[in-house]
Amino acid sequence: MNNLANERCEVCTAESEPVASVEQLRLLETLPDWRVASRGEVPVLIASFDFTDYEQTLAFVNRIGALAEEADHHPRIVVEWGSVEVSWWTHAINGLHKNDFIMAARTSEILRP
Amino acid sequence: MNNLANERCEVCTAESEPVASVEQLRLLETLPDWRVASRGEVPVLIASFDFTDYEQTLAFVNRIGALAEEADHHPRIVVEWGSVEVSWWTHAINGLHKNDFIMAARTSEILRP
Repeated sequence: MNNLANERCEVCTAESEPVASVEQLRLLETLPDWRVASRGEVPVLIASFDFTDYEQTLAFVNRIGALAEEADHHPRIVVEWGSVEVSWWTHAINGLHKNDFIMAARTSEILRP
Repeated sequence: MNNLANERCEVCTAESEPVASVEQLRLLETLPDWRVASRGEVPVLIASFDFTDYEQTLAFVNRIGALAEEADHHPRIVVEWGSVEVSWWTHAINGLHKNDFIMAARTSEILRP
């Protein structure tokens, strides 16, 4: 298991610190499914996952939903037949907080055998 | 209930007829939640639905998923906290088939009291 997945999410405010670029790169090394992309002006952590049927596709969405509720941190999820694209970022800072990397790690853990 | 929701979806091939523009406008009159938009070069039927909690948000996604499986026609769904954006179009014709209007009507019916 990625240790990051076991770290605790903090409550975020507009004053919370975003993750610095060097630290982002270090964290991304442990998150092979994920990359940083821009949505408008906002950096997001994004990954795509493929499935061979729709039942598995929706089951994955529901597992992510359960993680999101547990952490009270909710991603953007794009669902099509056989694919789920997940984006994590922190609205309060319009950027990437450590929480987003933790949630990305937890998302990937769902599919780890 | 919108009668369109009770119509039967046909099996589509690349030779299936797209809905003509005049007919699109007539069908849209019965679908107040929906509009036609472009995704790249492809016209899609799109609507956004708002919710006041995440449980309802995900429940709606799952209900759409059940409709999609039943009809073997699957939309693009964008899920965020409290909002679901649904797009229907027909991959086989890269455009809008009558099926998409039927599925849009069924999607709206999920939330009808």
